[in-house]
Amino acid sequence: MTQLEIARKGNLSPEISAVADLEHVEPELLRQGIASGVIVLPLNRNRHAARPAAIGAGLRIKVNANIGSSGDAPDSEGVIARLKAAVEAGADTVMDLSTAGDVDATRRAVLAQCPVSVGSVPIYQAAIEATTGGEGIASMSEDALFEVVAKQAADGVDFITVHCGVTRDTSELALKGDRLTGVVSRGGAFTICWMRANERENPLYERFDDLLQICRQHDVTLSLGDGLRPGCLADGSDRAQIAETAVLGELVLRAREAGVQAMVEGPGHLPLDQVAANVVLQKRLCHNAPFYVLGPLVTDVTPGYDHISGAIGGALAGMAGADFLCYLTPAEHLGLPSLDEVREGVVATRIAAHAADIVRLGTRARHWDDQMARARASLDWSEQFRLAIDPDRARARHRPSGDGDRACSMCGNYCVFSLLGNAAAAHK
Amino acid sequence: MTQLEIARKGNLSPEISAVADLEHVEPELLRQGIASGVIVLPLNRNRHAARPAAIGAGLRIKVNANIGSSGDAPDSEGVIARLKAAVEAGADTVMDLSTAGDVDATRRAVLAQCPVSVGSVPIYQAAIEATTGGEGIASMSEDALFEVVAKQAADGVDFITVHCGVTRDTSELALKGDRLTGVVSRGGAFTICWMRANERENPLYERFDDLLQICRQHDVTLSLGDGLRPGCLADGSDRAQIAETAVLGELVLRAREAGVQAMVEGPGHLPLDQVAANVVLQKRLCHNAPFYVLGPLVTDVTPGYDHISGAIGGALAGMAGADFLCYLTPAEHLGLPSLDEVREGVVATRIAAHAADIVRLGTRARHWDDQMARARASLDWSEQFRLAIDPDRARARHRPSGDGDRACSMCGNYCVFSLLGNAAAAHK
Repeated sequence: MTQLEIARKGNLSPEISAVADLEHVEPELLRQGIASGVIVLPLNRNRHAARPAAIGAGLRIKVNANIGSSGDAPDSEGVIARLKAAVEAGADTVMDLSTAGDVDATRRAVLAQCPVSVGSVPIYQAAIEATTGGEGIASMSEDALFEVVAKQAADGVDFITVHCGVTRDTSELALKGDRLTGVVSRGGAFTICWMRANERENPLYERFDDLLQICRQHDVTLSLGDGLRPGCLADGSDRAQIAETAVLGELVLRAREAGVQAMVEGPGHLPLDQVAANVVLQKRLCHNAPFYVLGPLVTDVTPGYDHISGAIGGALAGMAGADFLCYLTPAEHLGLPSLDEVREGVVATRIAAHAADIVRLGTRARHWDDQMARARASLDWSEQFRLAIDPDRARARHRPSGDGDRACSMCGNYCVFSLLGNAAAAHK
Repeated sequence: MTQLEIARKGNLSPEISAVADLEHVEPELLRQGIASGVIVLPLNRNRHAARPAAIGAGLRIKVNANIGSSGDAPDSEGVIARLKAAVEAGADTVMDLSTAGDVDATRRAVLAQCPVSVGSVPIYQAAIEATTGGEGIASMSEDALFEVVAKQAADGVDFITVHCGVTRDTSELALKGDRLTGVVSRGGAFTICWMRANERENPLYERFDDLLQICRQHDVTLSLGDGLRPGCLADGSDRAQIAETAVLGELVLRAREAGVQAMVEGPGHLPLDQVAANVVLQKRLCHNAPFYVLGPLVTDVTPGYDHISGAIGGALAGMAGADFLCYLTPAEHLGLPSLDEVREGVVATRIAAHAADIVRLGTRARHWDDQMARARASLDWSEQFRLAIDPDRARARHRPSGDGDRACSMCGNYCVFSLLGNAAAAHK
């Protein structure tokens, strides 16, 4: 049985109890959320991740880091280095998006070494194997695609992104409309290339039951991908995007029916005033399935700073109800991220998640901030470093004042916490 | 006559016309906004800043960078270096917050070299001169304080922060309540120390008419400071903060009456769900005076990353109607910022401002993003760099793919803009 089926029977699996502990919630609350589909627990039965992440209503927002090889960096060593950097910086999950080198070996190395839940996008492997064979993506056979899904599921992947909502109908809306950036999802683009060349429907939509069967067997959580997500503000919330979301909502119900856990992915690029609307609409159309957003980026003009643009959108999405944020690094739109950029992206996204959690969870989340406020008022620097979201950076950037009573170099003798004796007051 | 008085008479000053041009708005719209007080044009008549910033309703959100000396870096050279870094990174205004070295000389050097509007906080100079004399802040005479205000105004400062709302009543609310961080504004703390020691009311409140007379003479814009702003999330939107805002609203009307331009300052630290409420409340209590916020920071746990936390709060505040964002650098709460941190802070805050401007100004602001979207879809890298909010960083972080048709190293051959021929589509 999958975690969903166990929960639906009213039973507490050991996994649910353990995760409830990690999350500081009642196991029964977690069970009910999983049973009703508003929470997912991506936890492949073939690999017991040490720290699996439950994602959804009433829980801390989770942060995902994408890692993986590409043609310019095909080796698994770089992928494993990015994996370690991401986990050390606090990522709750990682996705292996490898498209070069020995992708089977890389995925297995990631799965073997990763303490947190791992996701993948099986169509990448299927598409590149068809391409590498010299025939191009169009030559990918449906069976080959499902074989890759089955192989990755058997390997222990906890969740898979599948762009089942990219149908012939919805993709035509994206391509024949007035979009400035067309289709920007790689999985979506692979699927469209294949459908056009073969004049066939998307196999992941048409044979959704086959997909469900594989997922049920290994308890793989579906992450229903938004292959038609907007790639710029101008394309945000357009007819194609919403049409695809509606299809994903239909598939959420079919997945639940089959005992398979499902969440839904969302944008992408959105103007600030469309962020909350997108969350509300997704929750409605997709029956309150957990919502997994990429950013969203709230401006298109920030290459080198997309982690900041994404943190703005992510915080707002989280406050509106998004449950899972995919990181963006400062290298987004420019290249594969360095290890420092991976860390920077994870921390920026954790800031967005925590800012939203303070609204979402109240004092359960804000307790951390209150401790920091007390440490600040009492000029207790070691406590400030301990509490900082990135202790190493806080310590490295601290510049104590030469003349000021434990103050920093910003105010020196004129530190407000010395002036007014707030330090003492904070301890009262 | 001040710009407010000229505008109120129905006249277009050459300065209003010039700024309307820079801002791409009708001069008459700018005149009406200044006349009614919903826009300020900080422009001291003794110094004609080359690029003054108008701030308020219907205009692009402006970004301020704080610079200034402190005990650990008293020389003016460092201040001028930070001034240049801030202006090069795109700051619309700077504030000289110097508290060490020859502050008169530093301020005059800043005013001489700065192309944009300059603000200051006169009580800093008055308080440190009293302290340096060995007597402590309590020994500051009221006349000395007003002499500093008059000197800075005569020197050409365009706007001054004055903490007139820190009265004996409002400050007691902050100090006797249950705040975790008490009073975190330096100007507020100086004022409270002085009021307590002298058992007197805040001179900047009690003698507000004297202040108005100086400001009117030189056309200095008042920035009514929030000396009781919250210093942590737990203290956000408390009774003391709101009581001070109400006092500032009363002073806005008195300033307008006297022909003096006025804006109002706001937090600080606020949970995400209190940000919009604070803007709405400030606009109501302060008669739609332009709102100038510091951040707001939406979590307290991000030393080293406060520019990101502040960008989240600033974007949301801007969308709700805030007009002017004070930057936060990665060094906030840790020390005086380096030049790189000044640049990073300015750019992060510009991202927040632009994300909000897209909502506030529509296509007038989003045109920039749409151009970037087209450049991206056509893989036109030089155009992407030209349009980037920080072209140098975008260029430096770009990693072209070795094998992929103008793609970057993230996707290489599998770049969506190559796969689907979106490049061609974008040019259709």
